[in-house]
Amino acid sequence: MQVSAPSQPLDAVTVEALADTFRLLGDPTRVRIVDALAGGALCVHEISERISLSESAVSHQLRLMRTMRIVKGRREGRCVYYTLDDQHVLDLFQQGLRHVSEGHGQPRANSDL
Amino acid sequence: MQVSAPSQPLDAVTVEALADTFRLLGDPTRVRIVDALAGGALCVHEISERISLSESAVSHQLRLMRTMRIVKGRREGRCVYYTLDDQHVLDLFQQGLRHVSEGHGQPRANSDL
Repeated sequence: MQVSAPSQPLDAVTVEALADTFRLLGDPTRVRIVDALAGGALCVHEISERISLSESAVSHQLRLMRTMRIVKGRREGRCVYYTLDDQHVLDLFQQGLRHVSEGHGQPRANSDL
Repeated sequence: MQVSAPSQPLDAVTVEALADTFRLLGDPTRVRIVDALAGGALCVHEISERISLSESAVSHQLRLMRTMRIVKGRREGRCVYYTLDDQHVLDLFQQGLRHVSEGHGQPRANSDL
């Protein structure tokens, strides 16, 4: 565990933005979309097939995720290809995955603490 | 952006655990607690003072966060000192912070996509 000297608490705007980002990722459908896009750019149709969800439901989620800069879109002809917005989103996803894969993220059994 | 060949989608249990972890972090009070603990171990009283929230409210959040393995507690005499559960939690928090500090995490202005 990295330990540093106590620093100034985060300002309210940063706290809200951080909570909003985590909250947006805290949904199973959006986790599936991030998982699909972790492999590279996909259009709505491909994401829809990959996660077995209607294209309209995928589009709805992508709009939310785009607004919060979790994904970004790039038009190519008649298709819009979506990717994760930046390396930080991929890193966040992969860190979360490591956390839950090591048995964290599962509810802890009760103990005295 | 790291791109790899399409892999198997995550299984349902992992998707739920990942969404639960992000959802738990997606709350301003819990973000403030993680921020406080990013600097090292603190007892409930110290967290309470640091984030200007009652000890009972802090304890309530810590119980939730402990159950989901975001924090862990270590008893020392009459006090319980809390730390982030593991390095992944600190990494998650810091990655999220980098994302929002670079202007991501703020709603994107509307454009054609």
